[in-house]
Amino acid sequence: MTVLVLGADGYLGWATCMYFSQRGHRVAAVDNYFRREALKAQGLESLVPVPGLPERARLWEAKSGSKIDVHIGDITDYGFLLSIFRQYGPDTVVHYAEQPSAPYSMMSRDNAAFTVQNNLLGTLNVAYAVRETNPACHIIKLGTMGEYGTPDIDIEEGWIEIEHKGRKEKFLFPRQAGSLYHTTKIQDTDLLWFYVRTWGLKVTDLMQGPVYGISTEESGLDDGLLPHFNYDEVFGTVLNRFIVQAVAGHPLTIYGGGGQVRGYLNIRDTMQCVYLSAMRPAGPGELRVFNQVTELFSVNELSGRVKTAGDRLGYNVKLQHIENPRVEKEEHYYNPAYTGLLDLGLAPNYLTDEVLEGMFGTVEKYRERINRQAIFRGIKWK
Amino acid sequence: MTVLVLGADGYLGWATCMYFSQRGHRVAAVDNYFRREALKAQGLESLVPVPGLPERARLWEAKSGSKIDVHIGDITDYGFLLSIFRQYGPDTVVHYAEQPSAPYSMMSRDNAAFTVQNNLLGTLNVAYAVRETNPACHIIKLGTMGEYGTPDIDIEEGWIEIEHKGRKEKFLFPRQAGSLYHTTKIQDTDLLWFYVRTWGLKVTDLMQGPVYGISTEESGLDDGLLPHFNYDEVFGTVLNRFIVQAVAGHPLTIYGGGGQVRGYLNIRDTMQCVYLSAMRPAGPGELRVFNQVTELFSVNELSGRVKTAGDRLGYNVKLQHIENPRVEKEEHYYNPAYTGLLDLGLAPNYLTDEVLEGMFGTVEKYRERINRQAIFRGIKWK
Repeated sequence: MTVLVLGADGYLGWATCMYFSQRGHRVAAVDNYFRREALKAQGLESLVPVPGLPERARLWEAKSGSKIDVHIGDITDYGFLLSIFRQYGPDTVVHYAEQPSAPYSMMSRDNAAFTVQNNLLGTLNVAYAVRETNPACHIIKLGTMGEYGTPDIDIEEGWIEIEHKGRKEKFLFPRQAGSLYHTTKIQDTDLLWFYVRTWGLKVTDLMQGPVYGISTEESGLDDGLLPHFNYDEVFGTVLNRFIVQAVAGHPLTIYGGGGQVRGYLNIRDTMQCVYLSAMRPAGPGELRVFNQVTELFSVNELSGRVKTAGDRLGYNVKLQHIENPRVEKEEHYYNPAYTGLLDLGLAPNYLTDEVLEGMFGTVEKYRERINRQAIFRGIKWK
Repeated sequence: MTVLVLGADGYLGWATCMYFSQRGHRVAAVDNYFRREALKAQGLESLVPVPGLPERARLWEAKSGSKIDVHIGDITDYGFLLSIFRQYGPDTVVHYAEQPSAPYSMMSRDNAAFTVQNNLLGTLNVAYAVRETNPACHIIKLGTMGEYGTPDIDIEEGWIEIEHKGRKEKFLFPRQAGSLYHTTKIQDTDLLWFYVRTWGLKVTDLMQGPVYGISTEESGLDDGLLPHFNYDEVFGTVLNRFIVQAVAGHPLTIYGGGGQVRGYLNIRDTMQCVYLSAMRPAGPGELRVFNQVTELFSVNELSGRVKTAGDRLGYNVKLQHIENPRVEKEEHYYNPAYTGLLDLGLAPNYLTDEVLEGMFGTVEKYRERINRQAIFRGIKWK
């Protein structure tokens, strides 16, 4: 199969390229280096040094014997995207090429406008390029569990049948998100769902919870193949941040009461989920939705787990509840379904003590590179 | 009250400016002349000649003694929009400044991209400008009944309480629209609803059905004050088109079986609805939604009404069922609620024979200007 990975330089992108490449598929990696530039502009960087995509592709070929093509360009430029589709004729496009940070989207009007424009024009272009070159190409789009918010009813897997005044209809499960970024993910689903109905496109939407972890099977070959690992407030995800904070001797930054429950998963499981979805594509005119999480934790549970593991390793981990910069409920009902990917064959890597200790080990190796100033600045939602 | 009307050159914009001005309010009219340019680019024009906004403002002042300020500029330019908000400090902003045509949004990738960008960045900028200058300013945003599509359950007025597995939650009524344009209206609601929750903005969303009619109370002063009246396939609404077709001796273009039911209203009622909403604003942190229609008709009922009225006036009206260029159900359940605006005091102008004959009269007056080539080209959704 030929796979196009859009957003190949992000946290998940390069790992995904290697995962498909390792399994014998032809992979083209596309990115506009947004993350690198946004990090640089804010004086931030990945904990682990991340070579550019062409260099990583060379390293990958040297270590694995497999080739990954790289194209640096912007998918909001339709001519560029179309030329890539024409060159590769992909069977599957994995669309990660969105501005992925909630705090980033809340920092200013310019950031919000960039997020809207980048995420929606990019997605629109993917839909048009697929339709123009090969409507049978399967689009795997990354969504987020954050789109659902924290409603007081069970969260179903993408769809819900509503019975109302004696009649019934099936709808997308109602979405109301907690940040502008998450709102653009609702909107890109609105877009794709429209073109699925109108043009018969094949789309899988992976509603992913916060991802943690740094290494994948393939990155074991060389540290130069590790993903961007961000621990700052803008691009870092919560568990990754807590571990860096613990290693740096910074108190774990718990927003508000810490009762916020979310579904999490290991980056290794993201690889499995995307791969399983690609191997068993959605049908024509189908928007298939999976809730891509493996376990639920409250922030307090996560910070507790990190403290326990860290203390055992000798870090003396401190916890600190800070004023919540976000607008979110700190105590709420949360009961999402997430069986679809298990049914496809997902074998979860749960958050064991071993996994936590492995993450501590990698972070420890790079502790000299931790920039304490980057850990917390207090970007506010309001 | 000071009112900012964004999109003041469109079908409803100038009529709204005059309506508020006539009732003693200070009005600033803003438009980027998108409609004029898009019409010109496609060789189309309004049936009735429409002077530019500054000229109409002069005419209005001469006839009514009241002044309307005019600013030609683009609200997707945030600096421009902010300067207008700072200059006027509006109590109410009526936001019509979106690309309003479903067929236009389906013609090409470029048109789709323009629609996404214009409609969402414009709305984002309005939210930011209100927050930055005066969060108490009431945003009245035009939505459309088309956002709901034609679900098999009753359409409630914006919101629905869902009971699911023994628990309850209130959500925005699920939306799934029939065109890319309508999809951007779902998306602009996603945006505003997010900022309502996060910043406490005051928003009224008017889910309007197709509007018909040409004259309003204020336009009676001079034909130079009449709105853009489009009868082409791109910018014309269905009843207006049927009447021009009847006068031109063109068969009425009924898409498919003609069983499609929608809610309609007279442009005079749009004026009332917007005004009533402005006088009784939404509260802080409230997204108030009204379904803005006064009557339901199927396309067959509408075409039948036009035929009866036209034949009586001697036009010998023909009906023609043509292959439906849209992706929509031609027979469907449709039962929307629309009591909110009646409760606010709306006194509907129903589609009487007198109203139809009045429209025939105005169109007859301009029949020499009808361009038969513009009536139907067959723009396809697929």
